[in-house]
Amino acid sequence: MTANPVLVHALRGGTVESMHRGALAVVDATGAVHTAVGDIHRPVFPRSAVKLLQALPLVASGAAERFGLTDAELALACASHGGEPRHAQTAASMLAKAGLDAAALECGAHWPYHDGSLKALAAAGGTPGALHNNCSGKHAGFVCLGCLMAAGRGEDPRAFVRGYVQPEHPVMREVTASLAASTGFDLNGAARGTDGCSIPTYAIPLRQLALAFARVATGTGLASGHAAAATRLRRAIAAAPYMVAGSGRLDSRLMALFGDSVCCKVGAEGMYCAALPQLGLGLALKMDDGNNARAAEVVLAATLKRLLPALSAEQQALLDTAADLPLLNWNGIEVGRLRAA
Amino acid sequence: MTANPVLVHALRGGTVESMHRGALAVVDATGAVHTAVGDIHRPVFPRSAVKLLQALPLVASGAAERFGLTDAELALACASHGGEPRHAQTAASMLAKAGLDAAALECGAHWPYHDGSLKALAAAGGTPGALHNNCSGKHAGFVCLGCLMAAGRGEDPRAFVRGYVQPEHPVMREVTASLAASTGFDLNGAARGTDGCSIPTYAIPLRQLALAFARVATGTGLASGHAAAATRLRRAIAAAPYMVAGSGRLDSRLMALFGDSVCCKVGAEGMYCAALPQLGLGLALKMDDGNNARAAEVVLAATLKRLLPALSAEQQALLDTAADLPLLNWNGIEVGRLRAA
Repeated sequence: MTANPVLVHALRGGTVESMHRGALAVVDATGAVHTAVGDIHRPVFPRSAVKLLQALPLVASGAAERFGLTDAELALACASHGGEPRHAQTAASMLAKAGLDAAALECGAHWPYHDGSLKALAAAGGTPGALHNNCSGKHAGFVCLGCLMAAGRGEDPRAFVRGYVQPEHPVMREVTASLAASTGFDLNGAARGTDGCSIPTYAIPLRQLALAFARVATGTGLASGHAAAATRLRRAIAAAPYMVAGSGRLDSRLMALFGDSVCCKVGAEGMYCAALPQLGLGLALKMDDGNNARAAEVVLAATLKRLLPALSAEQQALLDTAADLPLLNWNGIEVGRLRAA
Repeated sequence: MTANPVLVHALRGGTVESMHRGALAVVDATGAVHTAVGDIHRPVFPRSAVKLLQALPLVASGAAERFGLTDAELALACASHGGEPRHAQTAASMLAKAGLDAAALECGAHWPYHDGSLKALAAAGGTPGALHNNCSGKHAGFVCLGCLMAAGRGEDPRAFVRGYVQPEHPVMREVTASLAASTGFDLNGAARGTDGCSIPTYAIPLRQLALAFARVATGTGLASGHAAAATRLRRAIAAAPYMVAGSGRLDSRLMALFGDSVCCKVGAEGMYCAALPQLGLGLALKMDDGNNARAAEVVLAATLKRLLPALSAEQQALLDTAADLPLLNWNGIEVGRLRAA
């Protein structure tokens, strides 16, 4: 296998200390490749970068409307959030609207990713629960979808949703079908892994992931009802960008500034996907070494700088900063940079 | 530049999800290359992997003896510790023996790396100080060396040590001279960066770093007084392995089991150096992407498995586990492995 190119340099005192390789695809809704860097045909696990695709059935089924989910709640359904108090409360609210609670969540518990919230929880003598899990909003969305399905079948919602993380559960079959249809990739033969939150993740080429997000950007080529659902989710995220990530996080900062012209999502192990409605393009990238904060974010920012026309000064400044970051040491001295190669 | 080979695979459900490239040198004290993987001639920043080399003057100068430093304190001088209470107390004790305190440290402050200690400090409403910095023992060693130098010159110790992190300070010149002599590499023309704790770090080829540790392993080829100092430091680390890293950390676990037959040290950005006295060999490795826990540690364990003869069952089990680690998700389910390639 040929090595993918170096996309990010970590510099120390002007010398390259470390480097990050990866691949990147930008395509339009017809599947035409706009940009290809590295191997965009090798299947990769998209992880949390496809939460929006996994949330399409929540809206398309009518569950979001039935339970009166707000923009903040729909954005949280597409989120890898920091477990800040508002994130946890919003997940709890989604579950309450469907008549259930955190006991229905099957994502597991972990300490909040947001540092201040972790320390506040520790200082209060607390321990984390499933609501703090970065995927709790996505899981609350699955539970809402399951509750609607249970109602349609006249079954008890709590009993029906149990085991929803399993590939063969009716909820997860809907979610997987949405992923297969939007990416145009046959998942029956795809490599399958288990994600951090216990749902299945399927290996899909970057080219197909970028195609799915071009479809999200344009509405073209999505399954019936999914085009309107994609628009609804994009607008919810643009209206509540804090909910998709959190304080200080790149996704939230980008969408607070770019509104609906950038709809992007990080995923574990160096993944990013984005819909660019203004340009009718979709983007997917994966860093070979799985590094997010140091690598995938830098490549995303550098790519957006090249693709997006007519940036405001504030937008330009954010992308410039995110594509060429200072590295500070424990005394706050700048000792190097992270820079797109 | 040719890409270094893939040394570690991160597997998810049996599929390679991410990968880590790097280079590795094993040499003997004559400089003969025993093993070379990837480019071992490109200079790399060794960061904290050379703390033992930087501590040689502390012992060779007589400062360690003058201030009555214990095994635990000498091990801490070579450490990247977790900021656990015993680590912080030991650094404070070193400074007190030289007549100074934490105010003399110029490493900066950060929260303890050790998770339990971080949460306990947050729960107590505390904030971290310089003693919690993972480099506080190394810096306390520099301060002790400076205090001896000040006494020799009849100068006030506190005033003399100020600015000891600067390349031109007499303390740092001693430290840099030790690094140059032990690696046999001219640092005058070397690329220089600033380390996380504000001291200079110099780019040195892996081959020369491995040579320095072969010299530490054998005593051959070191500067006058430094061979005895190397033996003293190795024995201190073997006697107090908890001090070089901390609870659950690979370096401490390895040396608790292997005693003086492995003297290894992780460094930031995917670095490792090790002296193997039993074999008369030195080892140095660097992961291209700078990953430690997922990559450098796995490669070290896999390399030790190949090199070391006649392992006990417990030693074999530790290396097997460290070279092929399960990845658990938030529900504690094994979702993949980290495995030496």
